[in-house]
Amino acid sequence: MLSVADRGLQYGDGLFETIPFRHGRLEYLKEHTERLLRGCKRLQIDFNDIAALERELLIVCNQISGDGVIKIIITRGSGGRGYKPPIDSTPQRIITFHPLPDYPLNHQSGITVQLCSTRLAKNPLLSGIKHLNRLEQVIARNEWDSADIAEGLMLNYDDELIEGTMSNVFLVSDGCLFTPNLNSCGIEGVMRERILALACTLDIPHEIVTLTLDDLYQADEVFVTNSLIRVWPVTALHGTNKQWPHGDITKRIQKALDTAES
Amino acid sequence: MLSVADRGLQYGDGLFETIPFRHGRLEYLKEHTERLLRGCKRLQIDFNDIAALERELLIVCNQISGDGVIKIIITRGSGGRGYKPPIDSTPQRIITFHPLPDYPLNHQSGITVQLCSTRLAKNPLLSGIKHLNRLEQVIARNEWDSADIAEGLMLNYDDELIEGTMSNVFLVSDGCLFTPNLNSCGIEGVMRERILALACTLDIPHEIVTLTLDDLYQADEVFVTNSLIRVWPVTALHGTNKQWPHGDITKRIQKALDTAES
Repeated sequence: MLSVADRGLQYGDGLFETIPFRHGRLEYLKEHTERLLRGCKRLQIDFNDIAALERELLIVCNQISGDGVIKIIITRGSGGRGYKPPIDSTPQRIITFHPLPDYPLNHQSGITVQLCSTRLAKNPLLSGIKHLNRLEQVIARNEWDSADIAEGLMLNYDDELIEGTMSNVFLVSDGCLFTPNLNSCGIEGVMRERILALACTLDIPHEIVTLTLDDLYQADEVFVTNSLIRVWPVTALHGTNKQWPHGDITKRIQKALDTAES
Repeated sequence: MLSVADRGLQYGDGLFETIPFRHGRLEYLKEHTERLLRGCKRLQIDFNDIAALERELLIVCNQISGDGVIKIIITRGSGGRGYKPPIDSTPQRIITFHPLPDYPLNHQSGITVQLCSTRLAKNPLLSGIKHLNRLEQVIARNEWDSADIAEGLMLNYDDELIEGTMSNVFLVSDGCLFTPNLNSCGIEGVMRERILALACTLDIPHEIVTLTLDDLYQADEVFVTNSLIRVWPVTALHGTNKQWPHGDITKRIQKALDTAES
């Protein structure tokens, strides 16, 4: 339970992280806490005590048997009249444990996505960080109900391809790996960073660029990523005949990821 | 206290209203609940039981002595895996009572505003309604600390004047009243609607238009409005020599508003 006066509820004034807990450890904990700190800095939320957070995570994790997901929420805390953040508010840390989502195993070899009609607003001020203002994602995710559609891809209002509702997106064209720049909207996923680092290791040419729907249609391979799903190859676009193979570069990245983590 | 699983906290998945309670009654209650319902409809939150809400408001108001502010929050409720709203979630209603903000009385005859560097993102999907994703306002309001600055005016990324951090804005030019269209961002204030209706009654020509910084600079009178502050004439722009008078049309509207409410 949390006070209804908390600014996390009042204004979405906070940040979150979703971290897989598998085989007894939190995956990419450092990368997640670093993004959390970047977010706190951007929103000027006075939290940087990662040691305290890690102690609390340890207490929670020690009570867990089996795999799952740890969600961390940091809010600015209570108080302040109206929007003005109070000088002396105490940020709140909320840690919850959830079962792993039961995604079908065959998603690892290909999913169908749909193109969301919901667009992302451009706001460099809030882009990249994982803040609590997530109505765009909620509305986009509410566009479909069918279990046959695993994810929705989103454009911004300038018709640029940005991300999935809960994932980052990568295209492969002529042997090169491309992912959208997130200067004006989108979340900088921990798995996105991980994939870009792996591309270096694997000597796969890669670039962060502006992408359009044309680029998506003409790509040789497409995949989406996040910490929980890791890499899902995109093999079909709902409502169209468009298909992509579960291609070689995607497979190489999936394999390298599995190897790096084992 | 509210469950940390509530989507109001998790994603800002909800709406709010701030209603003055003065002289023993909730001002413009109908207009506020109507906007709340518009917001619920837009976000597909399954709440429309205004009768229940009004019964609860009555219980709260019966415990109050003196004036104050009632804040209503409606969230989608708990649950759902990830962003997808659950089919069967129960919307939560939260009603809280707060003291009236102690704004200086002389704000009724003129305030200094500053121009915020924080911009509003364009998102027609979320414009108009009073949803819980308010980080833009939080960041904008955090731009100044001085009690000499009563409000901040905000532009969108297309350099259009949209609103104040907590208010709507009106300009008077050549005897006409103008207020920005809120098609792509901004909140449709209850007091804004009230002022537009009053302009009809008073035979003041008025129009909802696209406005720029030039329009602001060249205006004969400027004022900002919300349910709590009602009408504050804007008489100075912080950091510049720009001044506006507390002009005749602003005064007529203030007077008509006081008369209508007495």
